Amino acid sequence: MLGMGFERILGGVCAPEGFYASGISCGIKPDSKPDLAVVYSEYPASVAGVFTDNDIKAAPVLVSMERVRRGKSRAIVINSGNANCMTGERGKLDALNMTQTLGETLGIPADEILVASTGKIGDFLPIENIISGIEQAAAELSPGGNTDAARAIMTTDTYPKELALEMEIRNKVVRIGAMAKGSGMIHPSMATMVCVITTDMLLSPELLSELLEKAVDWSFNRISVDGDKSTNDCVLMLANGAAFPDGCEFSKEEYEIFFRALCWLTGTVASYIVKDGEGATKLIRIVVNGASTDEGALKVARAVANSNLVKCALNGVTPNWGRIAAAAGSAGVGIDPEGLEIFIGETKVSSGGCATEFNIDEIKKILSQSEVEITLNLGLGKSSSSFLTCDLSTNYVELNAREMT
Amino acid sequence: MLGMGFERILGGVCAPEGFYASGISCGIKPDSKPDLAVVYSEYPASVAGVFTDNDIKAAPVLVSMERVRRGKSRAIVINSGNANCMTGERGKLDALNMTQTLGETLGIPADEILVASTGKIGDFLPIENIISGIEQAAAELSPGGNTDAARAIMTTDTYPKELALEMEIRNKVVRIGAMAKGSGMIHPSMATMVCVITTDMLLSPELLSELLEKAVDWSFNRISVDGDKSTNDCVLMLANGAAFPDGCEFSKEEYEIFFRALCWLTGTVASYIVKDGEGATKLIRIVVNGASTDEGALKVARAVANSNLVKCALNGVTPNWGRIAAAAGSAGVGIDPEGLEIFIGETKVSSGGCATEFNIDEIKKILSQSEVEITLNLGLGKSSSSFLTCDLSTNYVELNAREMT
Repeated sequence: MLGMGFERILGGVCAPEGFYASGISCGIKPDSKPDLAVVYSEYPASVAGVFTDNDIKAAPVLVSMERVRRGKSRAIVINSGNANCMTGERGKLDALNMTQTLGETLGIPADEILVASTGKIGDFLPIENIISGIEQAAAELSPGGNTDAARAIMTTDTYPKELALEMEIRNKVVRIGAMAKGSGMIHPSMATMVCVITTDMLLSPELLSELLEKAVDWSFNRISVDGDKSTNDCVLMLANGAAFPDGCEFSKEEYEIFFRALCWLTGTVASYIVKDGEGATKLIRIVVNGASTDEGALKVARAVANSNLVKCALNGVTPNWGRIAAAAGSAGVGIDPEGLEIFIGETKVSSGGCATEFNIDEIKKILSQSEVEITLNLGLGKSSSSFLTCDLSTNYVELNAREMT
Repeated sequence: MLGMGFERILGGVCAPEGFYASGISCGIKPDSKPDLAVVYSEYPASVAGVFTDNDIKAAPVLVSMERVRRGKSRAIVINSGNANCMTGERGKLDALNMTQTLGETLGIPADEILVASTGKIGDFLPIENIISGIEQAAAELSPGGNTDAARAIMTTDTYPKELALEMEIRNKVVRIGAMAKGSGMIHPSMATMVCVITTDMLLSPELLSELLEKAVDWSFNRISVDGDKSTNDCVLMLANGAAFPDGCEFSKEEYEIFFRALCWLTGTVASYIVKDGEGATKLIRIVVNGASTDEGALKVARAVANSNLVKCALNGVTPNWGRIAAAAGSAGVGIDPEGLEIFIGETKVSSGGCATEFNIDEIKKILSQSEVEITLNLGLGKSSSSFLTCDLSTNYVELNAREMT
C-alpha cells in the first residue's frame, strides 16, 4: 500500500481483468527489434484519448481521434520505427488498413480499433510487413504479453515503460495498467509519445474522457524533454468494466479513489519518460508557489523547465540561479524580483532581489543527485504548479545530430 | 555603394560627426581584459531605447529606461563582466553612481547619461574599480576609440561587433554607427545583448524612438541563439543632428533613406550576433511565406528557429524536414499539411503532405554551408516573415555547463 488507497502490482496493460497484449517484430526496424504491439480487450470497452494539438497530425492520430469520438473500442494496434506522418493519402489508407486487418483477424469491426505509430516522420509504412505482422501479433495475444508490447513500442527509449496499480472499490479489486514510450523526438525526425492505459473499472465514455483529460493535464502535459511537441503524441485509454460484470452505481468518493490512482499512474509514467529523456542525467522538478493564478504558475514552471540555459547549468552541476530567475522573468506574468525566492533543494539561493549567502559546495552536492527539485516562490498570490524536466547534455545534441539512415 | 543609397564605412559608433568613445580595463573581469566603455556626443542628442520585456530587469536597464523617456542624452557608460542584475537596492545605487561619476567627469548632468551592464547575474559590482575606471575612460575618449569600446563590452563574444554606414541626405553626408555584444546568455548566468547606435542625423526623440522600435522589431527581435530572453538586453540610440547644424525640414523620402539604412545596419549587426552564437557553426535563415497574417508567419518562423531538434539536425547536416514540419505545426496557426511546402536552400523536400524525391547528397551539400536558408510556404495567405538562428552544437552545451568561477 502506498498510503493512498492503492497498491503497485505487476502486469502492465494486462493487469486489469480481460486485457491481452502482444509484441512482435515485423521488419519495420532494420535490426529485427520488436516493432509491432497489439492490446486487446475481451469485453467491449469505453474509450478515451488525448491527442497532440500540433497542426501536423500523423495519419493514425487522425484515424484514432475520429474513432475515439464513438466512445467504444476493443483493441489498439501500434507500430514503432515509422511515424506514418507527412505521408499524405497513402498514409491514411495504410492506417485504415492496419485497423481493418486487425479487425478481420480478431473478428471485430474495424471502427472499434484504434491505431498509433511512432518513429521516423516522412516515410511510407512497409505495409505488407505490417499486415502479416498484425496477423501474427493477434495470434500471439496473451494475458502475459504486456512487457512484449511495451518493448515493441520503444524507439530510442532505453527501457520498456510500464506500470500497474490495484485498489478496492465497492469490495471489488479494480486495476489500472499502462505502457508508454517516448524520450524526446530524437533520432532523425522521431514522432514521440504514446501511452496506452487499460482498466477494468466501469466507466462511461464521457466520464472516462473527463478523468483522462484531467489526469493527462496534470502529468504528460507537465513534462518536457526538449520543448518540441510531436506530431504523433497520444494517450489512449480503454475501460472494459470487467471488475463489475453486473454493473454498479458509484459514489463520488469511489470515483475519487479511482481518479487519484489514475493520476498517480500517469504522473509516474510521465516521470519515466523524462528520466529516460535522451542524454538526460537527472530528473528535475520545477515547483512554482505564490503565483497570482494557476495559469501563471504553470507558465513560469514551463519557462524554467524549457530553458536551455537552466538545463545546461543543471547538467554541469553549476548553481546558476540567475538563469532560473531570468527564465522565470521571461514568462511575462509580472514577477517582482524583490518578492522572488529561489530554492535549490531546500536551500534558499536568492531572495529580496539578491543572492543569499549559500554554501556553493552544499548546492553542488544537491545538484549532483539524480533527482533535483527547484522551487520558486513568487510572492504574488496563492497558486502553485509544477513541471518535470531533465538536463540538456552534449549527448542529447550528439543523438539528435546523427546521420539519417 | 550597396545599391541601396548608402555605403559601408569604418569607424563604428565614432563614424557620425561629434561622437567619441573609449574602452578600458578596470578590473571587473579577472584577466585584465577591457571591461568598461564610454560613448559620448559632443552635442546634445535625441535618445531612444528598446529594452528587454523580461520581468527581471537589471538595475541599469531600469535607470536607462527612465532616462530615455526624457528624450535627450549625451553619453552612455557600459561595463561588461557583471550584469548588475538581481542586486537589489545596492545595484540601483551602483548604476546611479556610475552615471553620476561620468557626469561629473564630463561636466554634464547625470540624468543625461545612460548606463548598461552585461555579464554575470547576481553579483555586486566592484564599484570602486568602476568609479576610477569611468574617470580613466572619460579622459581617454577619442574620435578613434570605437573599436576599443566595442571590445570592452564583449563577454563571451569571439570578436568585437561594429558597423557604420554613410548616405547623402539634402546634400549632406549622414552617418550611422553601431557596436553590439551578445552571443547567447552563455557562461554561468550571463545577461546578454547590448547595442549602441549613433547618428549625426537630425531627429526628434519621438521620431527616433519610432524608427528605432521598427528597426529593432525587424532585426534583433527576429534572432535567436537559445530562445532565452535576457534580463539586460537593450538597444540605445543617440542622434545628435551634427550633420545639420542649422536645422532642416526633411521630406518623407529623406526619412525613408535614413530608415532603410538604419534597418540594414540593425539587421546586419543582428546577424553578427547570431553568427557568433556560442558553439554555432552556421547561420540559418528561416523564411515563412503564404501565412494568413504577419503575426502567424512570425510565429511559425520563431517556432522553427527555436526548435532544439531542428537546430541539432542542422548541426549534424541531416535533412530532417519532418522536424521542420513538426516545429511549424506546433506554432498553432492552423497549418494544413497538404498545403505545406518545405525548401532547404532552393530544393523542395516536402509538398502535398509528403516527402518529395530529393537528392540527399545535394541537400547535405547545402546544409554544409556556413549560411543556410530554409523556406516554408504555408499556402494559407499572403503574409511572410523571417527569423535568424544558428545550429545547436555540443559546444553550446559544454560552454553552458561549465563550472561557475
